Amino acid sequence: MPPSDWEERCAARKRVQMESIPREWIIEPPPKDQLNVMDVPRQCGLLDSLEMEITETVDVEIILEKLRRAEWSSVQVTTAFYKRAVIAQQLTNCLTEIFVERALQRARELDEHLSRTGTPVGALHGLPISLKDQFTMKGLETIMGYAKWIGSYADSDCVLVEILYECGAVPFVRTNVPQTLMWGETMNHVFGRTLNPYNLAFTPGGSSGGEGALVAMKGSPLGVGTDIGGSLRIPSSFCGLYTLRPCYGRLPYSGAMNALEGQESISSVLGPMANSLSGVKIFTKAVLDAQPWLKDPLVLRKGWDESEYRLVNHGGGGQLCFAIMWDNGVVKPHPPLHRAMLLTKQALEAAGHKVIDWESHRHLEIYKNAETIFAADGGHDYRQQCEGFEPLIQTMSPSTDKHENALDEPLAKGLVGEPYHRTAHELWQLHTEKRELRKSHLDHWRATVGRTGTGRPVDAIIAPAVAYTAVPHGLNTDSFYTTLCNALDYACSVFPVTVVDPEVDDPHPPHRFYNHEDEHIYKLYNSDLFPGCPVALQLIGGTQEEEAVIGMTEVVVDALGKLNTNSPP
Amino acid sequence: MPPSDWEERCAARKRVQMESIPREWIIEPPPKDQLNVMDVPRQCGLLDSLEMEITETVDVEIILEKLRRAEWSSVQVTTAFYKRAVIAQQLTNCLTEIFVERALQRARELDEHLSRTGTPVGALHGLPISLKDQFTMKGLETIMGYAKWIGSYADSDCVLVEILYECGAVPFVRTNVPQTLMWGETMNHVFGRTLNPYNLAFTPGGSSGGEGALVAMKGSPLGVGTDIGGSLRIPSSFCGLYTLRPCYGRLPYSGAMNALEGQESISSVLGPMANSLSGVKIFTKAVLDAQPWLKDPLVLRKGWDESEYRLVNHGGGGQLCFAIMWDNGVVKPHPPLHRAMLLTKQALEAAGHKVIDWESHRHLEIYKNAETIFAADGGHDYRQQCEGFEPLIQTMSPSTDKHENALDEPLAKGLVGEPYHRTAHELWQLHTEKRELRKSHLDHWRATVGRTGTGRPVDAIIAPAVAYTAVPHGLNTDSFYTTLCNALDYACSVFPVTVVDPEVDDPHPPHRFYNHEDEHIYKLYNSDLFPGCPVALQLIGGTQEEEAVIGMTEVVVDALGKLNTNSPP
Repeated sequence: MPPSDWEERCAARKRVQMESIPREWIIEPPPKDQLNVMDVPRQCGLLDSLEMEITETVDVEIILEKLRRAEWSSVQVTTAFYKRAVIAQQLTNCLTEIFVERALQRARELDEHLSRTGTPVGALHGLPISLKDQFTMKGLETIMGYAKWIGSYADSDCVLVEILYECGAVPFVRTNVPQTLMWGETMNHVFGRTLNPYNLAFTPGGSSGGEGALVAMKGSPLGVGTDIGGSLRIPSSFCGLYTLRPCYGRLPYSGAMNALEGQESISSVLGPMANSLSGVKIFTKAVLDAQPWLKDPLVLRKGWDESEYRLVNHGGGGQLCFAIMWDNGVVKPHPPLHRAMLLTKQALEAAGHKVIDWESHRHLEIYKNAETIFAADGGHDYRQQCEGFEPLIQTMSPSTDKHENALDEPLAKGLVGEPYHRTAHELWQLHTEKRELRKSHLDHWRATVGRTGTGRPVDAIIAPAVAYTAVPHGLNTDSFYTTLCNALDYACSVFPVTVVDPEVDDPHPPHRFYNHEDEHIYKLYNSDLFPGCPVALQLIGGTQEEEAVIGMTEVVVDALGKLNTNSPP
Repeated sequence: MPPSDWEERCAARKRVQMESIPREWIIEPPPKDQLNVMDVPRQCGLLDSLEMEITETVDVEIILEKLRRAEWSSVQVTTAFYKRAVIAQQLTNCLTEIFVERALQRARELDEHLSRTGTPVGALHGLPISLKDQFTMKGLETIMGYAKWIGSYADSDCVLVEILYECGAVPFVRTNVPQTLMWGETMNHVFGRTLNPYNLAFTPGGSSGGEGALVAMKGSPLGVGTDIGGSLRIPSSFCGLYTLRPCYGRLPYSGAMNALEGQESISSVLGPMANSLSGVKIFTKAVLDAQPWLKDPLVLRKGWDESEYRLVNHGGGGQLCFAIMWDNGVVKPHPPLHRAMLLTKQALEAAGHKVIDWESHRHLEIYKNAETIFAADGGHDYRQQCEGFEPLIQTMSPSTDKHENALDEPLAKGLVGEPYHRTAHELWQLHTEKRELRKSHLDHWRATVGRTGTGRPVDAIIAPAVAYTAVPHGLNTDSFYTTLCNALDYACSVFPVTVVDPEVDDPHPPHRFYNHEDEHIYKLYNSDLFPGCPVALQLIGGTQEEEAVIGMTEVVVDALGKLNTNSPP
């Protein structure tokens, strides 16, 4: 395809998307210099008071209860979130597929079912759910950020969507991703760049950045993203959301589209993103209760385990011991992250739990092994998707917004070396190294039993998800804190703790930099740049400890809530 | 290393092995023309009456109970099995590492512990257990059939051995394997060839063939082998044993040596081999109860599930529906296998269960995908282990025993094509194909719900493990029935059904052959060649259904037992 054609083809597809928005939902754009648009949905006048009430209800359990009792109809709830999603789209460009009539038709059927039978269809009855642009739905395109994929209509639903239907959910929008999915920001040639609603000059993170911006604006009560190196946790962190990165094969990926298709060394996983932890738990439990292994051969035969959620393996949760990863020895977190960890330590100790320091263990080796695996085909897959259709994107830096700190070199090169196409035998050697690293890290963790005083090893690690809060477009380079969990397959969550406060988040004096990336990240911080940006942390549990990770995150969130209540603001 | 050296090096190591046998345990060899040596342990006079009683106790639960009650000491039990193992070694060449004093010292410590505390150390207290020559033990060599590995002493136990010690077991011998582990027979340059005790001119199968011959001769109450394409099931089938092939990551492989190290597309797994199903269950439950995921990061966090064993997901086991795979459409089973399936059908129906026909689904495609994955490095790993140390073995056919049917071409070439070293991207494409095959096969299985009459899909498939019973050395070519389960990761067992009976197992008339291998296998059969050879079948359950597979195998074995009791012989 000649070069001029691809731009026109992408632009044409973007126009089709614009036309899928009901005209009456177009809002007046805010002033060009307004960077924080979080309040626009409240102010723009498109939502009536019930729609405001519905969309401001962050606890998913409350929405579901009102749906079950028919206090709110699914049509009302779906309409409210759809309108707000379309507002979010106009402000942050977070959506890909918009299909209002189809979603409302589904909502009507659910309302009729409930009114006819008196029984909800399933655990997610009537709830609108947004999906990252990988989760195929019959009759819709799945473009996933590739110009080549324009016009690829799915002839069946992926297993996740099948199960969401069984649970009574209303899939209602799909959300934006970066080309290749392998960026911590969100930009592609078809749908363009997604912006952070806390600051439009900032990235919402990626690759599930469309979900990040949408859910942050309360344009969806529950979103589903994916994560292979941080793609759920980076946007959740930058947008102040809760998420869970489950372990390989816990939730059903079958039938969803993906990058690096067939790469099984470190598997991408799917997980929920929400404004409440209840949303994370409800989604995870509903999908596991549906016995996804009956439909997806790669899913573990391991249903929701209530005793693990009740922390039976962690002394019942009465007194837990957390270890804080203040610094992973690769890149030092910005001051707001440090403060969030201090707050969390204080809150947990006030609630009677123990908190010790985590000693990082072979962190950079683990990161390098994972990045080398991701690049094992020397970029063949990416080139294959782009060749003849569009340029392969080399940087997330906006050409219109050059920044003195912009990193044009892909991060991996600096620390990991130039990628090349490896042989099967070379890949197997990386696996052998990975297994040794996993065993070594597990033994290191188990050895903390001598330091906790609980008779158990550390129950969970508290760490940054990213070394900083949201940053200007093109400047997100850190996946050191997140990739650890993908490589070791530790279940983990992200939870928001506070927001950046220039009054208290003074820059730290420079330290002896670990490497180029660390220096770059240090210099990026300026407390005036980030006010009001959400600050989130990661809670890391063991492999296949999803239920316990949710249970322990509840402990942390409760403790933080009590700290906020008891302390003067 | 010059060519003459490697033979001397192997011979020297073999002499060390010979010297590790206590001289007083050397028996008079049976006449050269005696091919069936199963009765030699009873007749040779080395075992006293208690030792005969101990070693003839096939139900592992009974041995464990007598050990717990101190009716038998561990020293007695270990000595009895050790003597019988050494008899088996002299007849079939089944052992590699022999370490009598070390095992007896361990047994003495366990006896002392029980006598001092009144409490057994664990679920396997005092039980001698044999281990395939992959399971490293501190201070012992792990040679695994490679001349290069002579002198490789382990500086720690593998995780399985750690756990067996915690459970109170006595690892007491290690057993022979083929060079590369990737053969269904058992021969290498260091320890030589292992023979089948039912017919010394026949192979015991492989790669866990040392275990097969040893356990068949009751030289071990419980053995541990591994399986990547049938290596537990082929020897269990050829030697009339019970086994379980668990799914990837259910039992702890960490720290054990392996071939194709780092190959993770289709993982090798470990499992028990025994003369009773109770041994299979006890081993599996004991290892899972030890929470192996705390020591091996690749093990699933999924303990022994008693409700799955009680077949709660299979209607409580009251009326099951089995499907029989009479023929996989690739190679047709020999008459004794056909009769074993008929017997099983009759027994299950008499016990009130349903039996329908299994419709094979993409069997050859699945096999080809798996074989192509195993050969993805073009043999680089094998060559690397052999180069400069010994020739890479190209055939299992004994040069002294040329047979008109001998297949000098490795099987895979005929059906799968010439192997070559694939790139990482090519390997990923094989994974994509594999995933599609797994999904397709799972959907095919689930769709049987319309044919069972139980409201559930088929509960388990009954199939041959191998298309024939044990065959002369060098002639085992079939892994079509076994590899299916490795590729699809279905949990499965093997159980013995009957023995070859020339009176009833007449050759079938020739059919239209599916391919060269099918023709070869058809021509191999001659009812006079195989009298008395064990005939076993495979029971195939779902992924991670180990407990249910054991439970359903008990149902089948009970039904067969009742059939034998009720029918005239």
